[in-house]
Amino acid sequence: MTEPRLRHLLGIEDLSRSMAERILKTAQAFHEIGKRPVRKVPTLRGKTIINVFYEASTRTRTSFELAGKRLSADVVNIGGSSSSVTKGESLRDTVATLDAMHANVIVLRHSVSGAAHYVARHTQAAVVNAGDGMHQHPTQALLDVFTIRQHKGEDLSGLTVAICGDILHSRVARSNLLLLRLLGARVRLCGPRTLLPHRAQALGAELYDRLEPALEGADVVMMLRIQRERLGASLFPSLREYSRYFGLNARRLALARPDVIVMHPGPINRGVEIADDVADGPHSVILNQVEAGVAVRMAVLYYCATEPGTELMES
Amino acid sequence: MTEPRLRHLLGIEDLSRSMAERILKTAQAFHEIGKRPVRKVPTLRGKTIINVFYEASTRTRTSFELAGKRLSADVVNIGGSSSSVTKGESLRDTVATLDAMHANVIVLRHSVSGAAHYVARHTQAAVVNAGDGMHQHPTQALLDVFTIRQHKGEDLSGLTVAICGDILHSRVARSNLLLLRLLGARVRLCGPRTLLPHRAQALGAELYDRLEPALEGADVVMMLRIQRERLGASLFPSLREYSRYFGLNARRLALARPDVIVMHPGPINRGVEIADDVADGPHSVILNQVEAGVAVRMAVLYYCATEPGTELMES
Amino acid sequence: MTEPRLRHLLGIEDLSRSMAERILKTAQAFHEIGKRPVRKVPTLRGKTIINVFYEASTRTRTSFELAGKRLSADVVNIGGSSSSVTKGESLRDTVATLDAMHANVIVLRHSVSGAAHYVARHTQAAVVNAGDGMHQHPTQALLDVFTIRQHKGEDLSGLTVAICGDILHSRVARSNLLLLRLLGARVRLCGPRTLLPHRAQALGAELYDRLEPALEGADVVMMLRIQRERLGASLFPSLREYSRYFGLNARRLALARPDVIVMHPGPINRGVEIADDVADGPHSVILNQVEAGVAVRMAVLYYCATEPGTELMES
Repeated sequence: MTEPRLRHLLGIEDLSRSMAERILKTAQAFHEIGKRPVRKVPTLRGKTIINVFYEASTRTRTSFELAGKRLSADVVNIGGSSSSVTKGESLRDTVATLDAMHANVIVLRHSVSGAAHYVARHTQAAVVNAGDGMHQHPTQALLDVFTIRQHKGEDLSGLTVAICGDILHSRVARSNLLLLRLLGARVRLCGPRTLLPHRAQALGAELYDRLEPALEGADVVMMLRIQRERLGASLFPSLREYSRYFGLNARRLALARPDVIVMHPGPINRGVEIADDVADGPHSVILNQVEAGVAVRMAVLYYCATEPGTELMES
Repeated sequence: MTEPRLRHLLGIEDLSRSMAERILKTAQAFHEIGKRPVRKVPTLRGKTIINVFYEASTRTRTSFELAGKRLSADVVNIGGSSSSVTKGESLRDTVATLDAMHANVIVLRHSVSGAAHYVARHTQAAVVNAGDGMHQHPTQALLDVFTIRQHKGEDLSGLTVAICGDILHSRVARSNLLLLRLLGARVRLCGPRTLLPHRAQALGAELYDRLEPALEGADVVMMLRIQRERLGASLFPSLREYSRYFGLNARRLALARPDVIVMHPGPINRGVEIADDVADGPHSVILNQVEAGVAVRMAVLYYCATEPGTELMES
Repeated sequence: MTEPRLRHLLGIEDLSRSMAERILKTAQAFHEIGKRPVRKVPTLRGKTIINVFYEASTRTRTSFELAGKRLSADVVNIGGSSSSVTKGESLRDTVATLDAMHANVIVLRHSVSGAAHYVARHTQAAVVNAGDGMHQHPTQALLDVFTIRQHKGEDLSGLTVAICGDILHSRVARSNLLLLRLLGARVRLCGPRTLLPHRAQALGAELYDRLEPALEGADVVMMLRIQRERLGASLFPSLREYSRYFGLNARRLALARPDVIVMHPGPINRGVEIADDVADGPHSVILNQVEAGVAVRMAVLYYCATEPGTELMES
């Protein structure tokens, strides 16, 4: 049977519910491959994947690079601080260049919201948004949902997910809100009042400006990374104050359901948004998220890079 | 039939006319591979290609990296600002080291003119010059000629090519002049008088210190990138003045032949040496050059890395 | 017959004499592969090797990267100055992340002594120490011994090896002392008195604070790289004074045995710890060391990454 393709993955809006579920199911198959002695399939042999990272990133870039290599694609990394190209115009020319080199997929991380959409308009390659400013990070949401389903079952309806931190500026929160709602979960957004986006209510989220009620009865608690560079902005309390009111510790976590899982996109600020005993405790699924990341990105690359009609994991 | 080998590609002088044509013909075969679903041949499996880039470069390094990977070679990147080794003596030791690791090909970009020749004397690996100071950039000339032949046919004799910009300091201009003359084209070099090399006349070029007459009746116009770091040197007018007298726009381009093609080695400075409507217009073949780059570099790596007697593109 | 595995290679203490000899023997087989037209075996296909280099390194990183690729593993590089993660806590989380991505081997270079041991306690992957502060660099010692055996035969007992330079701060000296003693060689450590570790006598070394007597009758002279950043510390004389008393030149080398070999881990400071005529002279085996490095690292990766029962170099 012919698999559908994904033209781009710029945001969760690019996914229908059935496409999202198809990606998650395919990721499940790839997840098994990561545990085999031979962690590789020939699915994308002869395809070209270019990771273009204008923002520093170790874990996301490594995750995409491994995903591509385990699919047998040729993977090339571009970027980092050495690339002087950060203005919109030049970004367009850079992407046109990669397109002319017959890239199949361009994985883009950029500090400007909307960069991935901009790039997608100027390339025949599929574009996967690996984080654009404060906008979206769709593969993060997919891997988060993958991890939730591992622990809570495939049906998310009836689950309560609390996302806590600087919601306003978080691409992780935005993508998760959209995907979780698409799949039927209840979403609570929690953070200091100045960091809560009031538009989110229209998307079906419940807003909390205190941590305790947001945690109450939650099935899933997703803590966001504090961007220390935002400190000093008037929107943001001091680190110490933030941690005091919005840091997750074992005592607060007891308000959630007994089988709650705790998530974090990483890298974590230990002792700031999350205490050590929670990050390393029995409810934490943070490393499961990392593991899921490679599998989910393999699935996304698969749907972006294969020709129509390709059979999954020919071998 | 046994294919000849290329010991090094340091400059266009390393090529006979027949070897140049052989590379261009082989590049044609590789050019097709870039469009296939599987963009990969096993030709250089088990060969080691090391890209040593002492100058920052995104497009040339990516082009060589993809060329090597699509030939199934093992490709390793070295360099960038993290490498502190920039003095001649250390360069020699670095190259001796890569040689001892049994590199088949060392692709070198270096800010010092003559660096590739220097390195070639100290290694058993084949050395491909990917740009050495103000000296040469032979694969750029080969990909430019490849692109010209795509549009103008295989025989360059009778064609008029105008190369415009800071000729004196341009390795692209130097390599193109030599290759175009070797293949029988007429070459016009055009730029501010202080940036024209008077020796070039001995190589058969015609010199122009104004843009309009250089464009008149040209079949090919090749614009050079302005190196902004040279601004302020006494040889160079201001950016605005430069653009006013030597920038290519649609009005000026009308002086050339109706079927003129416009080339640029990239990255382009939009609005400086080339206007948007020309760069993105119907005469522009700038992205064809990028596309040709991967194919031409595959061909060069093929002739440098294969053992004598290897059959092309065994598969 | 089933090959044994290596859980980690953090220091020479991880090796029994028979395991060390097994690695050296396997390296011999891989050494031949580097000279073949096809420098690649499928041994580690589908395995993931992650090079995590917190300290800048060209030769060691390249050597490990080539070793992994020639074994057909998927190799990913992380680090350099772009990685902000240098504190212990974050190092632990970084490694846990790589572990969750199912790395088979983590190759770590870090400026902190003991970093590799620390990391090894937090990962299921095998950890290979590629240099940790002033502590150890075990693959360097293995490749040095490999090179000595190439020139002096397999039995090191009866050989006298003089290691000269800043012994106190050298991870190369420490690993070599341990491995050479394990294999039965006599070891002389030589350097300015302030840079000699008096504990080393307990490990069976003879200490010399002058170069000439240390060289007398030596079969092997191993010069250490002067870390210029230590100049100015009170322990260290000026570069000129150091070179005058502890630099190796042809006149001094004549004190050693006529068939002496001269080694250096590289990169060399020509004219400081070693004179040009010695570095490039007939006794120098410095490039043989580099060549051996790839083979030895292939062997180490092989014993770290294969499942028990894997047959060597299936092909």
